Amino acid sequence: MIHSVGTRSSLSLRQSLASSRRIVSGQWGAQGLTKRHFTYTGRCLEQDASVKLPSFLEAYKKAVEFPPATYDFETFFSQAEPNTEVVLHGYLGQRADLSKKLSFVRLTDPTMKHSLQVVGFAKNDAFEKLKTINANSPVAVRGTVQQKKKKGSDNGTTAEDSWELALEDIHVLNDFPKEIIMTPETVFAPEQRYLQLRSDADLREALRFRAEVRNVCKKELEENNQPSFIEIETPLLFKSTPEGAREFLVPTRRPGLAYALPQSPQQYKQILMASGLPRYYQFARCFRDEDLRADRQPEFTQLDLEMSFATGDDVMRTVEGVIRRLWSTLMSDAAPEGPFRRVSYQEAMSKYGSDKPDTRYGMEITRLDYLLPVDLVMKISPLTNPIVEAFKLENVNNDPAETQKFITDFLDSPAGAAFNNNPHGGPGVFVYNGKQPLCGLQPFGFEAAEKVEELLEPDHGDLIILQARPREPLAGGSTPLGDLRRALHAHAVSTGFQDAPTGFDFMWVVDFPLFSPSSESEPGQGGAAGFSSTHHPFTAPKTAADVELLLTDPTKAVADHYDLVVNGVELGGGSRRIHDAAVQEFIFRDILKMPAERLQDFSHLLDALRAGCPPHAGLALGFDRLVAVMLGKESVRDVIAFPKTGKGGDDAMVGAPSLMTEASLETYHLQLRKPR
Amino acid sequence: MIHSVGTRSSLSLRQSLASSRRIVSGQWGAQGLTKRHFTYTGRCLEQDASVKLPSFLEAYKKAVEFPPATYDFETFFSQAEPNTEVVLHGYLGQRADLSKKLSFVRLTDPTMKHSLQVVGFAKNDAFEKLKTINANSPVAVRGTVQQKKKKGSDNGTTAEDSWELALEDIHVLNDFPKEIIMTPETVFAPEQRYLQLRSDADLREALRFRAEVRNVCKKELEENNQPSFIEIETPLLFKSTPEGAREFLVPTRRPGLAYALPQSPQQYKQILMASGLPRYYQFARCFRDEDLRADRQPEFTQLDLEMSFATGDDVMRTVEGVIRRLWSTLMSDAAPEGPFRRVSYQEAMSKYGSDKPDTRYGMEITRLDYLLPVDLVMKISPLTNPIVEAFKLENVNNDPAETQKFITDFLDSPAGAAFNNNPHGGPGVFVYNGKQPLCGLQPFGFEAAEKVEELLEPDHGDLIILQARPREPLAGGSTPLGDLRRALHAHAVSTGFQDAPTGFDFMWVVDFPLFSPSSESEPGQGGAAGFSSTHHPFTAPKTAADVELLLTDPTKAVADHYDLVVNGVELGGGSRRIHDAAVQEFIFRDILKMPAERLQDFSHLLDALRAGCPPHAGLALGFDRLVAVMLGKESVRDVIAFPKTGKGGDDAMVGAPSLMTEASLETYHLQLRKPR
Repeated sequence: MIHSVGTRSSLSLRQSLASSRRIVSGQWGAQGLTKRHFTYTGRCLEQDASVKLPSFLEAYKKAVEFPPATYDFETFFSQAEPNTEVVLHGYLGQRADLSKKLSFVRLTDPTMKHSLQVVGFAKNDAFEKLKTINANSPVAVRGTVQQKKKKGSDNGTTAEDSWELALEDIHVLNDFPKEIIMTPETVFAPEQRYLQLRSDADLREALRFRAEVRNVCKKELEENNQPSFIEIETPLLFKSTPEGAREFLVPTRRPGLAYALPQSPQQYKQILMASGLPRYYQFARCFRDEDLRADRQPEFTQLDLEMSFATGDDVMRTVEGVIRRLWSTLMSDAAPEGPFRRVSYQEAMSKYGSDKPDTRYGMEITRLDYLLPVDLVMKISPLTNPIVEAFKLENVNNDPAETQKFITDFLDSPAGAAFNNNPHGGPGVFVYNGKQPLCGLQPFGFEAAEKVEELLEPDHGDLIILQARPREPLAGGSTPLGDLRRALHAHAVSTGFQDAPTGFDFMWVVDFPLFSPSSESEPGQGGAAGFSSTHHPFTAPKTAADVELLLTDPTKAVADHYDLVVNGVELGGGSRRIHDAAVQEFIFRDILKMPAERLQDFSHLLDALRAGCPPHAGLALGFDRLVAVMLGKESVRDVIAFPKTGKGGDDAMVGAPSLMTEASLETYHLQLRKPR
Repeated sequence: MIHSVGTRSSLSLRQSLASSRRIVSGQWGAQGLTKRHFTYTGRCLEQDASVKLPSFLEAYKKAVEFPPATYDFETFFSQAEPNTEVVLHGYLGQRADLSKKLSFVRLTDPTMKHSLQVVGFAKNDAFEKLKTINANSPVAVRGTVQQKKKKGSDNGTTAEDSWELALEDIHVLNDFPKEIIMTPETVFAPEQRYLQLRSDADLREALRFRAEVRNVCKKELEENNQPSFIEIETPLLFKSTPEGAREFLVPTRRPGLAYALPQSPQQYKQILMASGLPRYYQFARCFRDEDLRADRQPEFTQLDLEMSFATGDDVMRTVEGVIRRLWSTLMSDAAPEGPFRRVSYQEAMSKYGSDKPDTRYGMEITRLDYLLPVDLVMKISPLTNPIVEAFKLENVNNDPAETQKFITDFLDSPAGAAFNNNPHGGPGVFVYNGKQPLCGLQPFGFEAAEKVEELLEPDHGDLIILQARPREPLAGGSTPLGDLRRALHAHAVSTGFQDAPTGFDFMWVVDFPLFSPSSESEPGQGGAAGFSSTHHPFTAPKTAADVELLLTDPTKAVADHYDLVVNGVELGGGSRRIHDAAVQEFIFRDILKMPAERLQDFSHLLDALRAGCPPHAGLALGFDRLVAVMLGKESVRDVIAFPKTGKGGDDAMVGAPSLMTEASLETYHLQLRKPR
């Protein structure tokens, strides 16, 4: 890997201004060009000999007027006529000097998808000009079209190979600096995102693909639904409300008053449902001032939709349509035909230890504590009477030594440390080995070992992992054993111990608990109940029975909340909403025990619900993640033009966030708090 | 006008929770319904007699499970079969009780575009239930299809009139409050935007139309350009840079650091041009913390585009394509075929006193000072040697008395005060009257009156207005006489003195000065030069001659800057950009005299330009305004779902902005500044 030396520090502002830059000689007016697609209205250059311009202005004066292209490359390839003169725009390649009188250079078009051979002969000034221009510089080239091989011949040559251009004149539009080395191996820093983009066709293609994904979603929602979905923009200068995540504030010039950036258009879209607009969608920018976890962005895009007179079933069916259309249009394999299967939160958590499980590679979790001898349980956990669960990892080579090395390496690695340090006990590791007493399951004792064999059906060399957890209801997004399952499988794939799973396994995870214990990492709704809404406080209870539980035992109530999960990734989540003001207010006040002043923050929503709002349900797909999953990218950064790259949500390229000036603080009637 | 009484204060949160709400009786499961389009997976209702629910929960428990619609209305109208049972969703109309045994009520569908007659007979419980439900409530209605007239008969009946529904059962989904009066005359407050939307089909239609406008723009840019435009999202958490307008800040949890919301995606899109992506567009949300002038929003949407290897001509041609496609697709009259005419800033300002003139109604401004007697000039202005200009307003009735009354009324009105109080002198008013000496032009003297007649060709009864201004180059967006021309014409139209002009008169206003005197209302670039960039500091000088002027007299340099103007409205503006880092830096530092630390804020852009950025140009169309113009709406508020309505940029409905809490200020290491 070659790190480019063209960094900000090496090219100071002052240096660049001071240095004499390129000197472009030669005359080239607008006249004499083959004009096909464009009319060029060149204004006369008023010469004023008395002004002595610095060289950079002299050069720019010439660059201001450049000849329009007679063709884009695609049109050129299909319409070019031999022996005509054309002007093409593009980026110059690396020049190959075959002799003092002959040079070859490729011209890459502005889209950087096509290129064409340009041949320079020492018959005109252009040949010498060509030699002064650095590779990668944008240029306008005038040349005579030459056919290399018969166009459309069937010997496998592409259109690009059929044509070349005999150089007549070349116009440099902006010199590419010699200091910047751009080879296929060059790795550019996030500060030079423009060079990452310019040098990486894959990255540019991801942005094009992203735009296509957007269009397919749009088409499906607008054309394939009755009534049709309408794209409606909702405000970004919103108000702080205790929905769940921490919101960015936007101070105003009125002392003490601020907007908040929305964590989602949730409240506005619900109000649209109260407004006689039955189908809404939007590619919505959302903001969360969260402690950045892996691959989260402080601003992100979601495909946000809502339907009135609808239930969760209607929404799920609609979203399945979007996914199916995306896969059938843009992917090599179609998505499954029928409705996606639904897995309850309880099942996902108990079978996979995750509410967004990747189910393609087995390793299902099995409860074992009821059959384990007490001394074994005491060995693997300090807990009294814990729940103990296990899964099996197969070794296709049936080689216990290999398995032992695999798991030891993992647990000794930094990734393994968190699991070893679990305060409820580290993982219990057993390698099933037909050559050992009780096949390596001696600590289970004869009886339990037999049952374990029945339950897990291990083969010679397979790995069995045990993990204890407190005897408590399942809550949150994953269990430590679920995390270990995921990490161990990833390690198995990355080390070649197992093959990477293929295909896309879509499912709805449903029946989430309506409320979850409050966590410190998310502010929740700031209520005093000790628990928060799992999804958000607008989520409806699922059935009439769950409505009753609100009064008796709200933590047992099931939500009409559904997450779309594929291959261990949560693509999106949605819910049916509470459409009744009295019930919504009851949840805010009596269940979540929100203080009165926070409840007041939601009065607009309650008023809208009260005005005869129909039942409604919706969903938001994480659009960045959806595109990343479709392209098989590890990170959403690879599908965002200008992602935040730093830990603190920095845009390294532009240097955001930046220091507030004293003047701007004063404008907003603010001052910095002194550190305590 | 009836003001609804259903305001926030009259429906307090506590009252609504406390009040026993609707009691819905009757049983209605999912069984027994004609299922056509939907599969309904109803879960069994677990009855628990021991729980006594409050009445609102009891009602909600029933509302949670409602029957799915067997049809949307459009499908129903085309596929309905007589004597079948269907379920339709919608809003209940005003019930008409024809007798104790017969009621009629219309059901309006969720889109509020269609409705259907429902007939209730006193043969089942549903008839009694119907009578308990308020008009405008969302309901699910089960009924038997009855054909009123032969479907498709050619006696002019619509599909809606051909069918009615005999009521079998009705399910109220959320009672519409009796306190809210919704008649065609009701005017709802901005706080009740959902009721404005629900009661105003025109407003909802504007949002649908807006979505269509968006789609047509998209199609034109993606499908009708080669290379195609790609929709690319750029960040909203940007950095404060002195581009021109005041930016909203978004403090972060790192002390003193803040993002800024972008006033446009300008810098990111230019960086895209340096990144090998030659055609970009985006419906971009933009933010300006401006003192709100008429009809401006602190957040607004622009159709933002940029093209590399392109000049202003390429951009104008592309945008003309978008406009033509919009008009030919969505409007009754097509836009003009050829290129839109181009009017220079100087011409627009001197002929119409505006850089966005409405040229449809004549009233062209003519320079007169060279022919006026000094004593007349002294009468209309305290200035020494001012420029004096005039225009004529025709009176088709040739009635001088009527004209006199018209202009007197105007100048005595509040709208006229600003013109009377012009420190450079109020308007000089002359009514051309064949019955008076010198036709009412006596103050001109014989010689000048004759010349004025030659120049303005007034008819009997026409109005001539004179106005002085200082002898200075034209600058800014309008002159007082231009403002008067506009205001007087608007007054003439609103009072019926003249007909409203029709049609759409598109033009490009071009050749703006590159720099304009700094104004206090816009911060500009904060340089010390005494002038600021007219468009923004990235705008390129137009010709090589203008490049030379940078060194000798920058205020005389003309910009490659073009505004799209129609009927006196600036639809958008764009420019060719400076694509050369040295020239851009020269403008920042040596022309605008930006301080070094502000210049540093642009280093990312300079670095991107330096990395061989091709020439590029672009434009942004004010999307809210475009839609408003197409729909003939006075205000952009009528084409935005949730506009800011208050003077301070308030969202009256949600109550934004709101008070920052002490806790949130602390989170962002901020405190309020004490008032001085």
